[in-house]
Amino acid sequence: MVETQSLKYVLCLLCSVILNIIFVFKEGGEWNLSWSRIAAIEAEAVAAISCSGHGRAYLDGLVLDGNKEPVCECNTCYGGPDCSQFLPDCAADANGGDPLFLEPFWMQHAASSALVVAGWHRMSYKYSDNSFISEELEKLIRKVHSIVGNACTDKRYIVFGAGSTQLLNAAVHALSPDNSSSPARVVASIPFYPVYELQTDIFRSVNFNFQGDTSLWKNNSDAGTEIIEFVTSPNNPDGQLNKAVLHGSNVKTIHDHAYYWSHFTAIPAPADGDVMIFTLSKLTGHAGSRFGWAIVKDEAIYQRMSTYLALNTMGVSRDSQLRSLKLLKVVLAGGGRDIFEFGHETMKKRWEKLNKVISMSKRFSLQKLAPKYCTYFQKISGVSPAYGWLKCEKEEDKHCSAVLQAAANIIGREGSLFYAEDRYVRLSLIKSQDDFDLLLNKLNELVSGEEGPKNM
Amino acid sequence: MVETQSLKYVLCLLCSVILNIIFVFKEGGEWNLSWSRIAAIEAEAVAAISCSGHGRAYLDGLVLDGNKEPVCECNTCYGGPDCSQFLPDCAADANGGDPLFLEPFWMQHAASSALVVAGWHRMSYKYSDNSFISEELEKLIRKVHSIVGNACTDKRYIVFGAGSTQLLNAAVHALSPDNSSSPARVVASIPFYPVYELQTDIFRSVNFNFQGDTSLWKNNSDAGTEIIEFVTSPNNPDGQLNKAVLHGSNVKTIHDHAYYWSHFTAIPAPADGDVMIFTLSKLTGHAGSRFGWAIVKDEAIYQRMSTYLALNTMGVSRDSQLRSLKLLKVVLAGGGRDIFEFGHETMKKRWEKLNKVISMSKRFSLQKLAPKYCTYFQKISGVSPAYGWLKCEKEEDKHCSAVLQAAANIIGREGSLFYAEDRYVRLSLIKSQDDFDLLLNKLNELVSGEEGPKNM
Repeated sequence: MVETQSLKYVLCLLCSVILNIIFVFKEGGEWNLSWSRIAAIEAEAVAAISCSGHGRAYLDGLVLDGNKEPVCECNTCYGGPDCSQFLPDCAADANGGDPLFLEPFWMQHAASSALVVAGWHRMSYKYSDNSFISEELEKLIRKVHSIVGNACTDKRYIVFGAGSTQLLNAAVHALSPDNSSSPARVVASIPFYPVYELQTDIFRSVNFNFQGDTSLWKNNSDAGTEIIEFVTSPNNPDGQLNKAVLHGSNVKTIHDHAYYWSHFTAIPAPADGDVMIFTLSKLTGHAGSRFGWAIVKDEAIYQRMSTYLALNTMGVSRDSQLRSLKLLKVVLAGGGRDIFEFGHETMKKRWEKLNKVISMSKRFSLQKLAPKYCTYFQKISGVSPAYGWLKCEKEEDKHCSAVLQAAANIIGREGSLFYAEDRYVRLSLIKSQDDFDLLLNKLNELVSGEEGPKNM
Repeated sequence: MVETQSLKYVLCLLCSVILNIIFVFKEGGEWNLSWSRIAAIEAEAVAAISCSGHGRAYLDGLVLDGNKEPVCECNTCYGGPDCSQFLPDCAADANGGDPLFLEPFWMQHAASSALVVAGWHRMSYKYSDNSFISEELEKLIRKVHSIVGNACTDKRYIVFGAGSTQLLNAAVHALSPDNSSSPARVVASIPFYPVYELQTDIFRSVNFNFQGDTSLWKNNSDAGTEIIEFVTSPNNPDGQLNKAVLHGSNVKTIHDHAYYWSHFTAIPAPADGDVMIFTLSKLTGHAGSRFGWAIVKDEAIYQRMSTYLALNTMGVSRDSQLRSLKLLKVVLAGGGRDIFEFGHETMKKRWEKLNKVISMSKRFSLQKLAPKYCTYFQKISGVSPAYGWLKCEKEEDKHCSAVLQAAANIIGREGSLFYAEDRYVRLSLIKSQDDFDLLLNKLNELVSGEEGPKNM
């Protein structure tokens, strides 16, 4: 009898265990996973490849003959199959503007930022409203600006571009007079982002050409010629919140607000320019996705930009629009606190460390940036620029980047590239932690090697 | 005793069942799925939304207030929340070039074409080789050409663009003389793809301008001026395998091979032009991904194109490069048989049906295309063009698209858009099955309504 009982009991147990296991998996959802399963396993396997915290493996990384898995792509100065080897004689690369300081944020938010794309996703040229622009993404962009308070979007049009890069020329094109005898003069204030000139020049347009420094046109009385002024705020390289210099009926302004996010600056007030350009690259750190947008007041300018973007590339890849949508959903979760606090804290700490070192030096100095009240953080937020704009103070140090290279094996971007003196050099603070640490170490050695402390 | 035995037996069974279930899931891999799980469930849920086979829901589709799921986006002439309503008075839209005829292929290959993207995937501007181009993707592109045999890639350079669209002007830019007094003349043979002129014009470059029909320059003796000839093979709209018309030291040729795939034409031999342009849009059907590539013989031209692409958009979105990589892996599975047989069969059937209807008509005729030996299928393959180039034969039917619209509610693209007579109209055969069926029905009604059969 006892055993009959236990038999029944065990049979019950058997059923309940099976049901439980089935239930657990159904809850987890895997029970339903079908076509996405293999891709998910593949992606997680690649993500699991250890590159010693000094590199990463990508789904589309190089696969060496005989291997199945992609190779580790190591940070600067790290090598070996798993990026565990530190390369001692390697230079600290503070040259580029890769916003990898945000990469750890996305690794911490792996689940919410993961994206699964079906093979038949958005094959068409157009969205259902017959445009090249995802309505859902446009909605989220307006939301992000309203919670950050860094730009007015009410009653404005929004166009998408392949990063801010494509939008810069789309705006120059749209603001230039068509079929005019005199081309528009495109200008920017020194020091300025080199692409303004390089890009304006390469198109060799009848409608516009680059004319250099804004100040040369300050007292221009020739109202007959259109002028297009690039205003970069915060400015690349020096982080200043520039304002338009030129005014008048013949002056159009393109406000490049790539860096106007709480990571890099206090937000004193929402930007309100006629043409404002933003990019995902400096908001989420996804430079590779090539996604940017312009906020445009005037409908005719918006139409001309849209036509330009249609004939140049037929709009922005639907794949990068989908990716941007997913990333902005994470940005918006919790009112943006997570990413902006992470971004601002990281950049502030880096700036403080850089400042501490340079303040010990007689030979070098950094740009001065005053803390401002940030309407987003609702407090005076510490300075946190994307770049250090370093100056060599010694008379003989006319070529500052050469000095850094020779004396400390540091690669910066020379001032002349920004149409400033070579006495200046731009040091990137937005790259990976490895890059920043290396830069800081080499600067420390260099400065501590100076004869005598600053105030002796 | 018996019951003790059965008790033991049942306990064994219990263990083995549990182990089995665990094993199954471990095999399936779900056991390990972590950060990708939620995204996978979300994507499969959206894919499972039924739109009655006459539409689809997308991950980035519009979400109406109060709803959680995106709306169904219905095919032309279908409506209602689940696209089940047929809209009787709706026009058959044969206007656009959306390559949705391949969508069912990707739905059939859901598992192999699914893609999971990690939030931190490729945030950088550059790949590890410091370029804007994925080496793995370039490898696959060369493989696809070698198995299809439609282009020589040995000792050629490959550049990527946002669809062929961006590459057209990149090539014109690279082939134009810089700082020359006389701009290059850009020409194409009528009927030609309108973007050649519209795009060349919008940049208003000092270096080049559009000069219309190639034939006007056939006997040009002015070797002092550079000429850039667009050669489209197969041609859009008429599907002819065009060859270069102009030759000489002052002539450069851009070979637009967007349609040079077994879906649309026999492949007589590998294309061997100096500058050849291809696009994912007409190979896999993913027009929305905006991915194309150019195969370039000369290094200097390749360098000029690369510089142009860098300053225009800083290369192609890493997201669309990743997507293209995944799709080309599916294309290459089984030597491409799956997709090219599907594509060719679909297009051949559509052409046969269209021909059958039009052959009954006295009022309309179609372009003549001869079957050719296809080196890929290794047989004479049936004709399967992307477009019907319809002619109105009646003297009074001078505006053929207007005739189709008025008499049968069919929207085609008028001949004049291709710089041909409006007596011609382009009918798209590459759109969804719904679009094609609708077109065919309306043509059937129209032709059967003609007084008397053709040969009476």
